[in-house]
Amino acid sequence: MKLLVLNGPNLNLLGSREPGVYGADTLDQLVKRVKDYGRLKGVTVHAVQSNDEGELVTRIGRSAGVYDGIVLNPAAFTHTSVALRDALQAVRVPCVEVHLSNVHARESFRHTSLTAAACLGQIAGFGVMGYLLAVDALIAHLDKGKAGEKA
Amino acid sequence: MKLLVLNGPNLNLLGSREPGVYGADTLDQLVKRVKDYGRLKGVTVHAVQSNDEGELVTRIGRSAGVYDGIVLNPAAFTHTSVALRDALQAVRVPCVEVHLSNVHARESFRHTSLTAAACLGQIAGFGVMGYLLAVDALIAHLDKGKAGEKA
Amino acid sequence: MKLLVLNGPNLNLLGSREPGVYGADTLDQLVKRVKDYGRLKGVTVHAVQSNDEGELVTRIGRSAGVYDGIVLNPAAFTHTSVALRDALQAVRVPCVEVHLSNVHARESFRHTSLTAAACLGQIAGFGVMGYLLAVDALIAHLDKGKAGEKA
Amino acid sequence: MKLLVLNGPNLNLLGSREPGVYGADTLDQLVKRVKDYGRLKGVTVHAVQSNDEGELVTRIGRSAGVYDGIVLNPAAFTHTSVALRDALQAVRVPCVEVHLSNVHARESFRHTSLTAAACLGQIAGFGVMGYLLAVDALIAHLDKGKAGEKA
Amino acid sequence: MKLLVLNGPNLNLLGSREPGVYGADTLDQLVKRVKDYGRLKGVTVHAVQSNDEGELVTRIGRSAGVYDGIVLNPAAFTHTSVALRDALQAVRVPCVEVHLSNVHARESFRHTSLTAAACLGQIAGFGVMGYLLAVDALIAHLDKGKAGEKA
Amino acid sequence: MKLLVLNGPNLNLLGSREPGVYGADTLDQLVKRVKDYGRLKGVTVHAVQSNDEGELVTRIGRSAGVYDGIVLNPAAFTHTSVALRDALQAVRVPCVEVHLSNVHARESFRHTSLTAAACLGQIAGFGVMGYLLAVDALIAHLDKGKAGEKA
Amino acid sequence: MKLLVLNGPNLNLLGSREPGVYGADTLDQLVKRVKDYGRLKGVTVHAVQSNDEGELVTRIGRSAGVYDGIVLNPAAFTHTSVALRDALQAVRVPCVEVHLSNVHARESFRHTSLTAAACLGQIAGFGVMGYLLAVDALIAHLDKGKAGEKA
Amino acid sequence: MKLLVLNGPNLNLLGSREPGVYGADTLDQLVKRVKDYGRLKGVTVHAVQSNDEGELVTRIGRSAGVYDGIVLNPAAFTHTSVALRDALQAVRVPCVEVHLSNVHARESFRHTSLTAAACLGQIAGFGVMGYLLAVDALIAHLDKGKAGEKA
Amino acid sequence: MKLLVLNGPNLNLLGSREPGVYGADTLDQLVKRVKDYGRLKGVTVHAVQSNDEGELVTRIGRSAGVYDGIVLNPAAFTHTSVALRDALQAVRVPCVEVHLSNVHARESFRHTSLTAAACLGQIAGFGVMGYLLAVDALIAHLDKGKAGEKA
Amino acid sequence: MKLLVLNGPNLNLLGSREPGVYGADTLDQLVKRVKDYGRLKGVTVHAVQSNDEGELVTRIGRSAGVYDGIVLNPAAFTHTSVALRDALQAVRVPCVEVHLSNVHARESFRHTSLTAAACLGQIAGFGVMGYLLAVDALIAHLDKGKAGEKA
Amino acid sequence: MKLLVLNGPNLNLLGSREPGVYGADTLDQLVKRVKDYGRLKGVTVHAVQSNDEGELVTRIGRSAGVYDGIVLNPAAFTHTSVALRDALQAVRVPCVEVHLSNVHARESFRHTSLTAAACLGQIAGFGVMGYLLAVDALIAHLDKGKAGEKA
Amino acid sequence: MKLLVLNGPNLNLLGSREPGVYGADTLDQLVKRVKDYGRLKGVTVHAVQSNDEGELVTRIGRSAGVYDGIVLNPAAFTHTSVALRDALQAVRVPCVEVHLSNVHARESFRHTSLTAAACLGQIAGFGVMGYLLAVDALIAHLDKGKAGEKA
Repeated sequence: MKLLVLNGPNLNLLGSREPGVYGADTLDQLVKRVKDYGRLKGVTVHAVQSNDEGELVTRIGRSAGVYDGIVLNPAAFTHTSVALRDALQAVRVPCVEVHLSNVHARESFRHTSLTAAACLGQIAGFGVMGYLLAVDALIAHLDKGKAGEKA
Repeated sequence: MKLLVLNGPNLNLLGSREPGVYGADTLDQLVKRVKDYGRLKGVTVHAVQSNDEGELVTRIGRSAGVYDGIVLNPAAFTHTSVALRDALQAVRVPCVEVHLSNVHARESFRHTSLTAAACLGQIAGFGVMGYLLAVDALIAHLDKGKAGEKA
Repeated sequence: MKLLVLNGPNLNLLGSREPGVYGADTLDQLVKRVKDYGRLKGVTVHAVQSNDEGELVTRIGRSAGVYDGIVLNPAAFTHTSVALRDALQAVRVPCVEVHLSNVHARESFRHTSLTAAACLGQIAGFGVMGYLLAVDALIAHLDKGKAGEKA
Repeated sequence: MKLLVLNGPNLNLLGSREPGVYGADTLDQLVKRVKDYGRLKGVTVHAVQSNDEGELVTRIGRSAGVYDGIVLNPAAFTHTSVALRDALQAVRVPCVEVHLSNVHARESFRHTSLTAAACLGQIAGFGVMGYLLAVDALIAHLDKGKAGEKA
Repeated sequence: MKLLVLNGPNLNLLGSREPGVYGADTLDQLVKRVKDYGRLKGVTVHAVQSNDEGELVTRIGRSAGVYDGIVLNPAAFTHTSVALRDALQAVRVPCVEVHLSNVHARESFRHTSLTAAACLGQIAGFGVMGYLLAVDALIAHLDKGKAGEKA
Repeated sequence: MKLLVLNGPNLNLLGSREPGVYGADTLDQLVKRVKDYGRLKGVTVHAVQSNDEGELVTRIGRSAGVYDGIVLNPAAFTHTSVALRDALQAVRVPCVEVHLSNVHARESFRHTSLTAAACLGQIAGFGVMGYLLAVDALIAHLDKGKAGEKA
Repeated sequence: MKLLVLNGPNLNLLGSREPGVYGADTLDQLVKRVKDYGRLKGVTVHAVQSNDEGELVTRIGRSAGVYDGIVLNPAAFTHTSVALRDALQAVRVPCVEVHLSNVHARESFRHTSLTAAACLGQIAGFGVMGYLLAVDALIAHLDKGKAGEKA
Repeated sequence: MKLLVLNGPNLNLLGSREPGVYGADTLDQLVKRVKDYGRLKGVTVHAVQSNDEGELVTRIGRSAGVYDGIVLNPAAFTHTSVALRDALQAVRVPCVEVHLSNVHARESFRHTSLTAAACLGQIAGFGVMGYLLAVDALIAHLDKGKAGEKA
Repeated sequence: MKLLVLNGPNLNLLGSREPGVYGADTLDQLVKRVKDYGRLKGVTVHAVQSNDEGELVTRIGRSAGVYDGIVLNPAAFTHTSVALRDALQAVRVPCVEVHLSNVHARESFRHTSLTAAACLGQIAGFGVMGYLLAVDALIAHLDKGKAGEKA
Repeated sequence: MKLLVLNGPNLNLLGSREPGVYGADTLDQLVKRVKDYGRLKGVTVHAVQSNDEGELVTRIGRSAGVYDGIVLNPAAFTHTSVALRDALQAVRVPCVEVHLSNVHARESFRHTSLTAAACLGQIAGFGVMGYLLAVDALIAHLDKGKAGEKA
Repeated sequence: MKLLVLNGPNLNLLGSREPGVYGADTLDQLVKRVKDYGRLKGVTVHAVQSNDEGELVTRIGRSAGVYDGIVLNPAAFTHTSVALRDALQAVRVPCVEVHLSNVHARESFRHTSLTAAACLGQIAGFGVMGYLLAVDALIAHLDKGKAGEKA
Repeated sequence: MKLLVLNGPNLNLLGSREPGVYGADTLDQLVKRVKDYGRLKGVTVHAVQSNDEGELVTRIGRSAGVYDGIVLNPAAFTHTSVALRDALQAVRVPCVEVHLSNVHARESFRHTSLTAAACLGQIAGFGVMGYLLAVDALIAHLDKGKAGEKA
């Protein structure tokens, strides 16, 4: 089982970026935690960060047939990117949207998501832990799928 | 560690209620899965379902000092209840909002949540699995708190 | 054929409540007229009134397999209750929404209905007569269903 | 007692027009059913269909003193015609608005009615049956009026 | 100098239509008053009433080169007809919009006008008198134009 | 018969102010034309201009029992002043709202009027001529009133 | 003179609930202060708190003929309950709406009240003192009424 | 292959109507160009223009089984006519919506189309050329359909 | 203790201004009642009325260090004056907003207040009595402050 | 004559991306069809696809003086990119906006276009055929321009 | 070169008014800094502050031919005054809008400006420094104008 | 002192891009003027232009510790980019937003800025001069900061 962890704009600044909101871990530490957790669960995790909407769209576009699932933190693009939504709908690779902070408790323009409608679901507000929960959710979803295929 | 699992209106109908949207498990099966999972993780789970906003408000109001955390599926009240939001803000017991379905992909009035702003975060779209993820999220949050207290 | 007549908040005050808007009949007189009419048409009518959203949700939730149809006057909850809408969608018992007054000619917040979308249809503006029309509509609907089953 | 049944735009296409939404009866069959039902109830029914807003406005304008009541299915004009609303308010002939489909469960622009505010009430979602219910509602309304006049 | 007085939907009902709002004069009396006034001022007045948007659009379309000005009471179409607005913009015959009642003091959907933007101006709230004022305004406007041509 | 002509903010700049929109007459010329016209019609006209909302409110407040009618060009305050609306409603002196330009054809914030609802009606788009029309409208209104009193 | 003090959802948590917003008094202390103040003023005060919209609706419904006035803090229901508004309009017992905090200075969804329109008026922002002011306002209102009846 | 070209309100004024926006061709010239083009492509073109919404609705209603496709320029009705949308959805004759001007670059009320959702697609901004493109689009669509039928 | 009672636009017309809405007392009577009540309570009351927003802003600006509290009826400015809100926030003199009528039951533009957010709270709907309640509220607030200072 | 065909985000996935919506052709096939068609018409076609808003903006910026026209499918950026709109307005190279699907019949956020206002026009709903129509439209537009230059 | 510095409501309170937002300088100090800076740059600065919208309108109205430019801080009137906007458009004296605080980062009603559209531009967020920048901007603008006149 | 001047999409087209709106200077000339001005003021200026949101986000992300301040013209991204706003909030390098044109006087979607809230302030409408003013504003801000550090 192979998962792609996609991190959107400004997540390269983690650790220094408003630690009160986003936590003190750097992006490298975050990625390491998710990879370690994946190893524990028997899944390979590949991680990419980009500040570029087009790069993220491209990565999703290429994920079909390569990855079994995507953990996506679209960050600021959550609220503005129809392109990411279209990409997810195009490839149909199961995806879980993750947010470090509880977006529902912040500025009102962060309360709705253009991308979540093209995902399995959304996990928001649990910091790095949210990525691990997303890995669990994807494994459960994919296992259910396999079980279905066998039956 | 003691957790309260609160299920809102119509969740008593689980299994028979639009299984395509909400899954085939009954509420009893859901509760059993969460309790079993809690036992595995070393936490006691108490579960209550009510169709009554007032009853849910009262349960949250009484949870301070009794429960270490709440897993709340406010169901329809997510989008209409200022009272539940006020209750959560009043007791300040850590709470995780859970939705069986991916509310972000349904009718637009389900895209925003009045209650999530008073929670740690929200988990939506993973069926019963979402409750187990919420238990994990609460344990992680409470452990972090305890670690902080010791330090 | 068994029908449930559900009356929502403040309908217990009928007769004394703004008679210019809601008519001079009391709730008991209304219920008696509907029951008498049902008897005439060969259907049993059971009637419940509650000011409590949760109680109404619960009654609808229990109606599956017990009643062949529901006549629902959600009153004030028409415009605010996602929970009633969800309950109707969960049980799939045919339901007719009734309003004593012509809600379309009153305050603008009464012009839209959250619950009607989960019903067969809506009848508004004909006072107690509207309940009798709803009984007729349900009988016609159920007869058509039976005819369909036989064919 | 004389009633005018006014059918608005595209109702001439009944039977062939989206039968899943509007039913398989043709307009002639619909009119026949309403006339037969009227005869049964002792009222004369005259029926007119027009795709033309102006024609419908004119018919309503001429109905005062000629008809005791109007059964109006404004179809698409329900949501766009201030002129029909003004016509109904001008003549003050009692009118019942009817819709074959449950407009409250369709596109959001069909959820509100410009014309219903100038009617006694609205009946929506019961197919041709709705016209018969409207006849009943008008008879009851007119009988009540006569009773009032005698008293 | 030749003027066209165009009256829109339901104005044929004047006198009987909500006299509290629209006055007790019939349409014939209104037209006679405007014609008499025109004669006094040395202008010929031709008057047409129609409940039909298309008819009104056609009349405006044919007015270029035939009439020097239009007095238009679009009635209900004021708030819904882009077609009338386009017709006025197409022919560029000077037009004054008139309303018998003070539309700015009625339902909010009567507060804005789609058609007024394609007119010289609007006169509302003065009953039949408003038509006479409109005749004066057109004469003044046309005289100014002629004076300009001569200069 | 005594009339008060009230001109609002920036109308002191007439003549130099955007002549394409407001015409080339100065305020003095405008006032002279209205006074001359009043004399012709047998009414005394008193004129006041102020850039000050409070001053205009005060003038209206003092007009009861002193003036038989008001011609008011609220200019920019048309769209922002609840105070002027309240003043007009308080004194109940018949008032006609006048605009030099056709406000319905300008920026959308000029399409609605807070003050017109408290007037007899509105005249817009005819330059200085609009004031003369307003005088006529007031005389007609007051004559009708007197006729009514005599009858 | 008998008054009913109705407290809505979460007010049972007073004292512990966000004391910075709602003050340090418990509900018992609040009720005691209002009762003592009532005794001083010669009125009997009965107090009920409920988290349940239906219960509050029922209490208002039963208040006609039992209480001379109601002091109502609808709390969260202020902004969401058409049912409470309808109940107040049904019984026509004079009611004063009270809020402990200044709702006009909090989240924008707290700036408007569905229930205040069915009350004599609203008092917001003065903590427990607001209940005493409401008692005074009701006494003054009822005295004026009695004076009127005598006259 | 037979096509119906339907032109809506004010298109009879082409050539004289705002030539800067709509071009200098008259309607006759436009129709001739489309017919000539049709002949070239082997399709018969029948053309109708009406200022009357009802007439256009009727023409569409009668087109089923008579025409293989419709080229529709709804003009002003694009933005206001639910009736035309319903007519197109009723007959299911393939239709292409055409606009002479680029409606997306004009007043904001011209940016959305009620009718386009019931068409194959929309072509806007290319003057008379747009009708020829629409003919091409319909032929391509119908050829694909025939190819599908044969296969 | 010295209080400033500030009355906004049109309140000079009290008594004659819509007595059904605002009561029959004149402004002088109102002021006298408040002063008498203040004397009874041991506070000096100074009263100013102005129709001028700027004057009211200036009075508030000068109140710091001179008055212990302000009773402000901003009247029409409640809904339009950012300047008054800024003035109150600048001086930080405790202020109570008062409305004679129940603004929450009138036109929707009167339901929200720009100024109340900069006050301690709002009292609306109790006529002149509201000013006396405001005096009580201010005394209670200031006493609490003094008690705090001593402690 | 040289044309640039610019395809926006996710169009690289054509063929596999929701074929029910976007058709079964791959991007290569689409480009080949357009190039072949161009050759037939005597125009050279250069094609670029990018998921990157900045890349598309740059390509448009460089097109002035290089290409005679642009066929642009902005895909998801249609609804979110002010930058593309600005680029088109900056270079003033004639552009036709194309959409494979009928955007007017999909989610409401796809009903309006930020970019179309800076184009000659828009063609939507005809699959790959739409690109060929766009080429025709551009040729016609450019020919007209040349004819104009010669004259 | 002569400049008018106009300061709007509450700016007389500078220094004591929310120093965290507006800085610790008094208005006198602010004016002195601007005058000194003007002297340095060879321009005469005249400064006026008023809490009165009418006064500010009048000052702008009189500035034509007297001042070469205006530095305007409309303060609270920025968001509510159509009159100031009209005044600026009437006199056409070049004006720069200045705000001490960064209005774009405060309450949402401060994010848009009615007056800025009638100015050269806006400078916000730099405290007193903003006035000096505005002086520079005006000088540069006027110099460019003179250069143009000479050429 | 080192400053970064960041120019957003389409600013590479300066000089040729709508010179009436943006001026006749090329980007190179603009950059040279800012650098020269910086040298004069003793600050080093580094300038980057990109059409790519991601590139701009990355540049801001890397600016912490490298630059003392940023002059940012986000161009089209001003109104659409949450990512740029987040980047500025993440690095906390003082930033001044600059616009060549007066955005407040253009299309309404240009009246609000997502990015300005994360800047010190905004300067709009002064062409290239605006960048020089921004440099001055940053120097003043940084000097004040240093002064504060020393004290």
